Formats: sequence, C-alpha cells, structure tokens
Amino acid sequence: MILKITCTDTKGLIYKVTKCLYEAGLNIVKNDEYVDTDVNRFFMRTEYEGNEGGDAILERLKSLLPKDAKIKLTPDRRRRIILMASKEHHCLSDIVNRCENDDLQADIQCVISNHEVLRKSAARYDIPFYFIDHRKYSRQDHEKKILEVIDQYDIDYIILAKYMRILSSDFVQKYRNRMINIHHSFLPAFKGARPYNQAYMRGVKVIGASAHFVSEDLDEGPIIEQDTIRVHHGYSPREMAKAGKDVEKIVLARALDLVFQEKVFIQGNKTIVF
Amino acid sequence: MILKITCTDTKGLIYKVTKCLYEAGLNIVKNDEYVDTDVNRFFMRTEYEGNEGGDAILERLKSLLPKDAKIKLTPDRRRRIILMASKEHHCLSDIVNRCENDDLQADIQCVISNHEVLRKSAARYDIPFYFIDHRKYSRQDHEKKILEVIDQYDIDYIILAKYMRILSSDFVQKYRNRMINIHHSFLPAFKGARPYNQAYMRGVKVIGASAHFVSEDLDEGPIIEQDTIRVHHGYSPREMAKAGKDVEKIVLARALDLVFQEKVFIQGNKTIVF
Amino acid sequence: MILKITCTDTKGLIYKVTKCLYEAGLNIVKNDEYVDTDVNRFFMRTEYEGNEGGDAILERLKSLLPKDAKIKLTPDRRRRIILMASKEHHCLSDIVNRCENDDLQADIQCVISNHEVLRKSAARYDIPFYFIDHRKYSRQDHEKKILEVIDQYDIDYIILAKYMRILSSDFVQKYRNRMINIHHSFLPAFKGARPYNQAYMRGVKVIGASAHFVSEDLDEGPIIEQDTIRVHHGYSPREMAKAGKDVEKIVLARALDLVFQEKVFIQGNKTIVF
Amino acid sequence: MILKITCTDTKGLIYKVTKCLYEAGLNIVKNDEYVDTDVNRFFMRTEYEGNEGGDAILERLKSLLPKDAKIKLTPDRRRRIILMASKEHHCLSDIVNRCENDDLQADIQCVISNHEVLRKSAARYDIPFYFIDHRKYSRQDHEKKILEVIDQYDIDYIILAKYMRILSSDFVQKYRNRMINIHHSFLPAFKGARPYNQAYMRGVKVIGASAHFVSEDLDEGPIIEQDTIRVHHGYSPREMAKAGKDVEKIVLARALDLVFQEKVFIQGNKTIVF
Repeated sequence: MILKITCTDTKGLIYKVTKCLYEAGLNIVKNDEYVDTDVNRFFMRTEYEGNEGGDAILERLKSLLPKDAKIKLTPDRRRRIILMASKEHHCLSDIVNRCENDDLQADIQCVISNHEVLRKSAARYDIPFYFIDHRKYSRQDHEKKILEVIDQYDIDYIILAKYMRILSSDFVQKYRNRMINIHHSFLPAFKGARPYNQAYMRGVKVIGASAHFVSEDLDEGPIIEQDTIRVHHGYSPREMAKAGKDVEKIVLARALDLVFQEKVFIQGNKTIVF
Repeated sequence: MILKITCTDTKGLIYKVTKCLYEAGLNIVKNDEYVDTDVNRFFMRTEYEGNEGGDAILERLKSLLPKDAKIKLTPDRRRRIILMASKEHHCLSDIVNRCENDDLQADIQCVISNHEVLRKSAARYDIPFYFIDHRKYSRQDHEKKILEVIDQYDIDYIILAKYMRILSSDFVQKYRNRMINIHHSFLPAFKGARPYNQAYMRGVKVIGASAHFVSEDLDEGPIIEQDTIRVHHGYSPREMAKAGKDVEKIVLARALDLVFQEKVFIQGNKTIVF
Repeated sequence: MILKITCTDTKGLIYKVTKCLYEAGLNIVKNDEYVDTDVNRFFMRTEYEGNEGGDAILERLKSLLPKDAKIKLTPDRRRRIILMASKEHHCLSDIVNRCENDDLQADIQCVISNHEVLRKSAARYDIPFYFIDHRKYSRQDHEKKILEVIDQYDIDYIILAKYMRILSSDFVQKYRNRMINIHHSFLPAFKGARPYNQAYMRGVKVIGASAHFVSEDLDEGPIIEQDTIRVHHGYSPREMAKAGKDVEKIVLARALDLVFQEKVFIQGNKTIVF
Repeated sequence: MILKITCTDTKGLIYKVTKCLYEAGLNIVKNDEYVDTDVNRFFMRTEYEGNEGGDAILERLKSLLPKDAKIKLTPDRRRRIILMASKEHHCLSDIVNRCENDDLQADIQCVISNHEVLRKSAARYDIPFYFIDHRKYSRQDHEKKILEVIDQYDIDYIILAKYMRILSSDFVQKYRNRMINIHHSFLPAFKGARPYNQAYMRGVKVIGASAHFVSEDLDEGPIIEQDTIRVHHGYSPREMAKAGKDVEKIVLARALDLVFQEKVFIQGNKTIVF
C-alpha cells in the first residue's frame, strides 16, 4: 500500500505516522518526507508491505494528524487512462507500448484525436479511437463531444500526448490535477505555439521538454519532469523537432510513471516528487 | 593560422578557398563550413599549419570571393581581456586559474568591479583591481569611470564574469561583439533579475546557464554556449544558486575558449560555433 | 546524393573533390571532412542536391584521388533491415514505430527471435516473425537456421535489438560492418552478461548504453553512439534496468539514424560520425 | 546537528528515532532513510535545529536501537583537510577557491606534492606546500615522509586532487574512509593509468570522472559521485583530457560537499548518498 499525507507542519509528524504503522504491525518499505517551509506544509509518502490495514489505518491517522491533513491510501494497481493526441505519433506510440508490455502500470481506455492520422496506430493495439474533428464544431461543441466520450469511461487520468488544441478553463477545471500534458520546450522558455521555431529563432544551444499538470493558464501548470538535449546552429527547426521528440516521449513517460506510483504531490504551482 | 570567411553563398566557395591554400602550398589541418540558408550566407573556418601566407593569401582570397566577403586571418595567440565582476567569485576565480595555467589562452589585464569583495581574489594573482562604486556616481558617470580604466589597456574582449549591473546602450555599442556575459539561467527562460528565485517560484526540475555576446537588449544577445543540470523540489533558491554556479563557470569558460580559438561566428542574433 | 570518401591524406583533397562537383554544376548542401592523423587517413562526406551525376562523378573522382580511395555514392533511400531480438520489447517497439511513421528511413523485413514473446509485437505491425528456438539446436545449427531466414531477404543491415545470444565469429564476419548491436552499459564498463547487475554491485552513480557495430570480440566493436543517465543507491538492479531501457532505445535509434544517413565511417575499431 | 545512524533493519526504527527527538523537544528539519535489503541494513540521516542534546540523545538512542547500531552526531562545522596533488592544477585550484569563498565548508591545512609545479598555486593562497620528491626516495620512504607531514596536522580528510602515485595498502588503511580520490574516467571503465588515452583508443562517445573513497584495490573504492560529458571522434587524447578536467573538478567538489555535510554512508564497496 502507498500512504500519502499532506498537512500543516508540526513537531512529531513522522513519529506519529510511523508509530501508527508500527503498532499495526506493518512493515515500512520506503519512506519519504519533505517540508515546504515557504508554506509550512508537510508531505509524506510511505510504502508498506501488503494491502492490509486500509480503513483502520486511515481512521487512526485522522485522529492523530492535524485537522487539515489530506490522507490517501492507494493499493498498487494499474491506472485507467485516456490519451488525447493530434497528429504526432511518438508519445502515443511510446505510451501504448509501455502499457502493453507492463513498463507503465496503466490501461489505455481510448484515444481521442482531432485528426484521423493516428487511427492506425491505435487500431494496431485494438484501442478504441475517436476522431472528433475540431473544424466541424465550435470550440464549445468540440469539447462537449470530447467530454461525451470521456464520460463513457471510468478513468484516473487524461494524458495530452501531443494534443495541440488549447482546452477551455471549464474543461481543465473538470479534470484538475488529473490531466497531464507534454510541452515541447523547456518551460518557461518558449511557451505557446511552435516552440522549436522559437528556439531556432533564438539560436539556443539546448532544447528540452516539460511534462506538467494542466492548469487554466496555458503551459503554466505544475511541472512534474523536464529534460534537455544539446543542439547546435546546424539544426533546422525540423531537426530540432526531430531531436526533441525523443526527449518529449521520455519525459512524458517518466512523469506518468511517477504519478501512477503516487510519487507526486501538487503544492500550489509546484510539485514535490519523491 | 586560422582563416575565417563569411560571405553570400554561391557555388564553388569551398573549392575556391581550398584551391587558393593548395596553390600556396599550405596544409589544411581542420576545415569547417556552414551555410545559413535562411539568409543565404556561407561561413568557413580553416586552420592551416604555420603562420605564413598572411597578406598574400588575403589579397588572393579577396579577388576570388564575393565582394561582401569578410575575411579574417588570425595567428594563434593569447587574447588580452578585462574581467568585470560584482561580488561572486566563482567565474572570476575559474578564469583566473585557467589563464594562469594555460587552460585558457588569455591574459587578464585587470578586474573592474562595483564592489570591494573581489579585491583579494585579484590581488592573489597580482591582477590590477579597480573598484568603481556605483553608489557614488550617476549611471552615466559610473560608466565613464569604467571606460577610463578600460581605455588604459589594449584589449580584445571584456568578460562580464557575474557583473550584476546593466550597461547602457552606448557602452554596449562601443564593445559590440567583444563583450561576453554569463547569465545565470537557461535563456530565454528567466531573463532579468534573480533568475534562481524565478526558477524556484516556477518549480522547474532543470536549471541552466547561458554565455552570450552582450547586445543592447538585456539577455537577448547571441548565445554562444548553454548547459543545464537537474534540481528538485528540495532545492531552495540558495541551493539552486549554489548548484548553478558550477554550470555558470563551466559554460562561461567553454564559451571563452571557443571565442578565443576563433570558432564562433555571429550572424544576426545567433552564433555559428564550429 | 551522399558522397563518402576515405583515402590516404594528402594535400588538396578537399579542393579536388569540390572542384569535381563544381565543374559538374552540382550544389553542395553539406560538407564534412576529418583527418585521422594517427593513421594519416582522410574522411569526407558531402551531400549535394539532386540524384544526378552518379557514374560520371565516380569515374572523375577515381582519377583525381589517391589509388586507395574508397568512394561511395548513395541516393537518399530507405534501408532494408532485419531485427533480431530476444524477450525485451522496448528497442523493437521503438524502431518499429519510428519506421512506420517515417522517423527512421528504414523498412523492417522481418523479426528473428530465439523466444516467442515478441511475436505479438511484430504481428501488430504485420511484420513476419521467425521464432528459432536456441534450445532446440546446437549453436551451429541455430545460426544456420537464422541464416536461412536472412538469406530470403535482400537487406542492408541486421539490427540486434536486445538479442541476447552471442553470435559466432563466422556469422559476424558474414555481416561485417552491417550488424549493429545495442549493449546495455556504457562500454567498456560492464562488458558481457548482466551489466545492470554488475553496475549495481559496483555502486555506480551513472549508467549508460552503447550502440556499436558487431565485431568478433564481444562488445568490442566500433562504438557509434553512447549516452548515460544518473542513478543512485536506491536503484535496485531491476530499477536500473528499467531506467536503462530508455537510454538503450534512444541510443540505438540515434545510431541507426546516423548510419542510415551515411554519416558514419568505420576506421579500425572506431567510428567517425559527422 | 546532524544525526547519522546505521544498524540492522528491524521494524519501528524510524518511529523510535523520531520519538526520541520528539520527546527531547527537537525539531527535525530534514530526514532521510534507506534500507539496503541485500544486507538488511538501515541508514538514517536526520538534521535537527540547534546544537543541543548531544550526549543525552546519544545515550537514549543507544538504549533504543539494535546493539550493532553506529550512531554519529555531528555539529555543523568546517572540515580540516589536506590536499595531495601532482602536476595538474585544476582540482586543487577549484577546491582552494571554494574553501576561501565559503562554497565548501573546509580549511586546507597544507598541500603535499611529488612535484614542484603547484607550489605557486598554493603560495598564492598562503597554504603550506610540501614538495616530497618521489624520485629521491624508495616508495616506502616516500610515504614515510608524507606521513610525517600529515602527522603534524589534525585533519578530517585527505583529498587526492589528481595525485598520480599509487599509495600502499598500509597508507590507505591508516586513512580508511577518510581519503577521497578523483579518478579521471567513468569507473569502472578505464581503470589504471592514462584513462583518456584508453578512452581515445576505444573510440568512446562519452567520457567521465568518478570521485571515490580510496580502498586498497586501485580505483575500486566506494564511488561517491560520477558524471559524464560527450566527446566525438575529433577529440585527441589531449582534448579529451582538457574536456575531462571540467568534469573532474566539478565531480570532486560535489563529492566533497556531500561528504562534509555528512550526507554519505559507506556500506561495503558502495555509498548511500542522501
């Protein structure tokens, strides 16, 4: 089981939590704590052996910890996810293969796209594919159609695997902290459209990618994972994009793995990643 | 000798240059070319053995190449530089030690600072140190005092080794393409003041540094070299700054080494680095 | 067209080659040269526009260059490859998706495996899959069976995409310079079996992967590409292997892309990569 | 204060330690734990506010923890170190400057060298320099002379900052776990002499450096920190060494900073680094 706790920081929190687990006869396998002193907040993630102790442990912890404590107890299980994508295959292909081969503990319920191009990629893995053409609908209706599809499924997370349309504030709020995007730049550099073109115009020597939770401000949500690679003057925008794809898919996959293992906490506009 | 050529791209340029050197009996050791197709411009850097052939080669090349060709022939020699710095020692210490031990082919003429703190660091290496207090003068007078010092020396480059004052447009223009700055972020992210604080507030997972030629727009000049390192939520702004210092000094030293070896061309707001 | 030349280094080689192309009215797009001074050997790769000039250019160059010159003129075309793999899917999945989506200019003719597990992965992409069980045959017969399959296809390269059997000297010689392997360590560290276990036992803080041409000495062939990632004491051998998979597949894909673009020369036990 | 504990792993250890500190009214600032399941050993590092509680806490913990527990309580203080070096300045220069400017919490007592070349570098910082010529003495006598110098000082650590002589088993044992070396390769690749030459001959695409505790087996001691940088075919052994110097000095400095902050545990031939 994975136990996640956040609450106001006070003396003795680790002691209280570990005491509670000790007295329940549970063996801690891995333990991480962090205090964000800016906001005086405590974060703790504890893995213990077995799937026992659920409700009793929760009750006991509630009585011991500060009243504002958020306590989450999650068994080790595969997450249910939906992928949204536009035309580029690399992130989708990568996630699909990881899931099929148990490198990522998730099951893809369906793919939703505003283009037809990735239908074949989804079909190869027998994953339902919904083409919802953004040119046929108003923005509002387009999102309504997407939500109708999503509502058919019981899901944990929505993954924007190179989905190139901006989602409305309403949409984002509905899946707050449950929607993860890969942005093809090293945020906060090159926010917005065509980041590789921006990077090329600026003549940078390093490019990157950022996986983040989606918030209402475009490309401003809490960053989960980032990485970079070197480029040089000889890279065209197209070659930068090609080199960048490898970083994008690896960064997104690492972020998903961290989130699915319950290793990520959101605090304001930042993440704590154990 | 190092030969640098830039001109409008046309067919046969490499052929013409190498023919000219071949006929002069010179042996090419290293050769790099690049065409910036956006602006149809050709760049070539050629190292050949020996220090011969100077004026004759230049004349011959001028007659063969397009009229807009810029041709520069440089013998292998140590550059004469001035360091400007404020309070932090790490870039200055690093450059001073590299120069003293022949890891960087340059001689430091003097250090100019708007604080007293680095006097000892300069003194340890018997380098003249000029403290010009920005609190005692108007911005204009302060720069005038600095220029009076610089004018005493015959120099190739001014290195802003963590000099934390913004220089006026007039100052920058006077040393156009001859002034190199280290910015303590991965540009264009976190331009301006206190980039590590900005990085901390944004919750990034990677930080970086950028060495660039100084242009009139702050932190917008042509980037020569950049690099990054990973950080995590546990880094305070102070710890980010500490980790960043190592990247800053290495990135600046690499940039200087490239420039002093004549491996860098400036084209618009970008560099070509061979 | 891509022109590759290697020969004994003498004065004027670049001049002679560029003259030949200039006089044929061909426009050079990209040009790279290198001299390995240890063995006094010259390497040049030139991309020129169009697919013209083939035989005539070759004849002309032969007459101009030293007698030992190897000259290769290749049109831009997709390579024909065979993948050999054992049980792990990540390199195979990655290559298959890149080829299907034009991120890698190659067509996979078939997959050969000594296990059944990857049959489904190949089938999803309608790629013929040959299961040749190494437990059923002597080493010699096993390779004979493999060669019978390979002989049915006209191929450019064999890719060992995590094929975990050692191939005999005879097999290797037959495909000298045409067989590329991904080794799951930063060679020459951790040669041989179970490198992640070796890395774990040694307590390293960085792990890596190496793509190389296969030579008769195990893990000793010319290295094409390598990369590394950081690990720490908390990684079990299994977690190192998981983290390493991402490096392996990216390193192998980059190596293949370089080879297929004719950017790689082999010189003795090293590569020159432009 | 920094509290370090290692002992056989049993249930409730974190609980017991945190309880002890909680009851003493001490506030934990940072806490890290790790269990090495291979050897069933528990490691814990706890930073708490203030310098109080020393002996009483130690006594209390001894009574609570398993009998094999090693408990170390260290106030935050500068370490006393000796540098040993041969001819290369870069690691020595870097450490000297960090110590002088408070980037590294240590005071250099003296420099011991088997060459004269670094005398000036030490003199610039008024650090005693002992030249002990290895050509004048037998190996045994040479080490005896070195030990005579070391014995004059009360030190915490000896830093081999590019000291290029192998030390005898007796010498190493005397400073077991207190002597840190920087090896100029990515261990275990290229053990022994002239690693850049070995790397060049092998044609690697990445080089590295490793900081490790010195053990009796050359280059086999517990690794504290490693890092790598990319090179290519165009790097001569000399250019590899030049590029490598930057990695060496940064890796060594990071390792020292970790050790001096009591963030490193040694377990067998590995380190746990918090």
